[in-house]
Amino acid sequence: MTINNLEDYFNQETGQQSPANLYEPIQYILTQGGKRIRPRLVMIGTELFGGNTEQAFHAAAAFEMLHNFTLIHDDIMDDAPIRRGKPTVYRKWNSNIAILSGDALSAMALREILKTPCDPETAVRLSQLMAETGVGICEGQQLDLDFESRNEVSISEYIEMIRLKTAVLLTACLKAGAIIAGANEHNLAAVDEFGTNLGLAFQLKDDLLDVYADDTVFGKVNGGDIKVNKKTYLYLKALEDANPEQKKILDHYFSSTDFDFDEKYNAIKKVYEELAIRQKTEQAIEAYVQKGLNALQTMDVDAQRKAELSTLITDMSNRNK
Amino acid sequence: MTINNLEDYFNQETGQQSPANLYEPIQYILTQGGKRIRPRLVMIGTELFGGNTEQAFHAAAAFEMLHNFTLIHDDIMDDAPIRRGKPTVYRKWNSNIAILSGDALSAMALREILKTPCDPETAVRLSQLMAETGVGICEGQQLDLDFESRNEVSISEYIEMIRLKTAVLLTACLKAGAIIAGANEHNLAAVDEFGTNLGLAFQLKDDLLDVYADDTVFGKVNGGDIKVNKKTYLYLKALEDANPEQKKILDHYFSSTDFDFDEKYNAIKKVYEELAIRQKTEQAIEAYVQKGLNALQTMDVDAQRKAELSTLITDMSNRNK
Repeated sequence: MTINNLEDYFNQETGQQSPANLYEPIQYILTQGGKRIRPRLVMIGTELFGGNTEQAFHAAAAFEMLHNFTLIHDDIMDDAPIRRGKPTVYRKWNSNIAILSGDALSAMALREILKTPCDPETAVRLSQLMAETGVGICEGQQLDLDFESRNEVSISEYIEMIRLKTAVLLTACLKAGAIIAGANEHNLAAVDEFGTNLGLAFQLKDDLLDVYADDTVFGKVNGGDIKVNKKTYLYLKALEDANPEQKKILDHYFSSTDFDFDEKYNAIKKVYEELAIRQKTEQAIEAYVQKGLNALQTMDVDAQRKAELSTLITDMSNRNK
Repeated sequence: MTINNLEDYFNQETGQQSPANLYEPIQYILTQGGKRIRPRLVMIGTELFGGNTEQAFHAAAAFEMLHNFTLIHDDIMDDAPIRRGKPTVYRKWNSNIAILSGDALSAMALREILKTPCDPETAVRLSQLMAETGVGICEGQQLDLDFESRNEVSISEYIEMIRLKTAVLLTACLKAGAIIAGANEHNLAAVDEFGTNLGLAFQLKDDLLDVYADDTVFGKVNGGDIKVNKKTYLYLKALEDANPEQKKILDHYFSSTDFDFDEKYNAIKKVYEELAIRQKTEQAIEAYVQKGLNALQTMDVDAQRKAELSTLITDMSNRNK
């Protein structure tokens, strides 16, 4: 099995399973495609330390399951109608079914990672990693919900939130691969540092693309975060650097979601431009990329494997969608 | 640590943790008391095979966490206002916080069981048990939700539902203790059989007490299941055995929750009495108890330990609250 077979594998694991109201939503979300970033990271972590990617297959599937479990529940909490161009689980079925199929998928993710063919010490480490990751993601999501109703959020609080909500899972994927490949403690610590910075850069890039993507490439309309008053890095940085006049504009437009969208989007974008928020965000991303690359340099692996990971992190920070 | 310290332990693990909106609901539900049946079963399973109950402490805590995670989410799904005499998590906070703190508690349960001081093979078995249990509970809860909106539910479907929803977790607790104590495969299979029958008897007794408890002892008003048209063993057995006239009465009163409660309760109880439903349910319980006791007899453990478990299952089936 390779991760190219993931969709077949998920169909096999969830199709025709009873009760249908539990497994159909799980099959639905697992077979919608998506970028499969997390399984790919598991494979990258495995290859980096010379491991066997076939051995890592179940861990890759498990982290994709864990990720999709969080999406099912996040979509209820965010009242989101659409995900990957299709109705979300809770809209297509209902919120009870979404709660429960998410819960089941979370337990299935643990069951899945335990299918990894490995010695029991490794299996225990993988279970521990999955437990810690699950706790971290929930902490991050709770901070995100808390921030919605708070007026003041510092940049450092925001970074801690996205570290937990996004970077912890991306890091865990790389680390699962590294554990399966038998990486030593020194290397695992470097993977942690690399993954954390990759994750932070990834999320800031997401924040940036919401405003500055070429919308013919990005595949969704720009300004979605601005529309719903989402406190992104761009917004928080603008608030931090704003003069009283600019702060008034930011506060005004972020006080409600009822404004004419074009008026609001253009007003906020104008403040961002005055404050060079695009450049400042790009600099912050670059700084995380650099920290990630530094961590990579400290790993005891051969240069060619490092080069692949280096390409990954730079591609990711240069992506335009 | 013993399970008498559970409340202190839960306070220590969840108090002052950040974010407060995630951990306060978890602390709230974990320190409400409750009967602590699941931790006790872990200890009973450990003692049965001569294990060290201190070693089983984290497994006991873990299964209490897993149980409470399911309660937090079930209360959202059932729109339940009160649990153990206090507002449910989702009523005291809100449903987003309840979804998320449940998710976190589920990951914490896995993290907790992995704290068990044991060899890695044992830790892997405990993780697998927790994963299988988590999947089973969700399947059971989904069947329960499905049955609410179905007209026809057979007794065997009902038994499969309560096996998954209730018996799987009770069995897992006994089994976790047995695994920690190093029970062999033969004995673990007998524990499975014992636990399943204990769980089924336990749930049927619950169904019975809803109608026939001495309400000064049971601590809640009788007839709650009848009021909300819950398809219990009693109701399904009555439907199975009813003549057309009796079936009409059952269908009539179970078609709505708007009836005068006393009128409905008395009408249903009258049909139950005509059909000897109380006695038939008691016989079904007795049959499960007997199957459980038979499984117990096949275990290779000394007679005194068997006697304790035998007392447990008979006490449980004779309880009046």
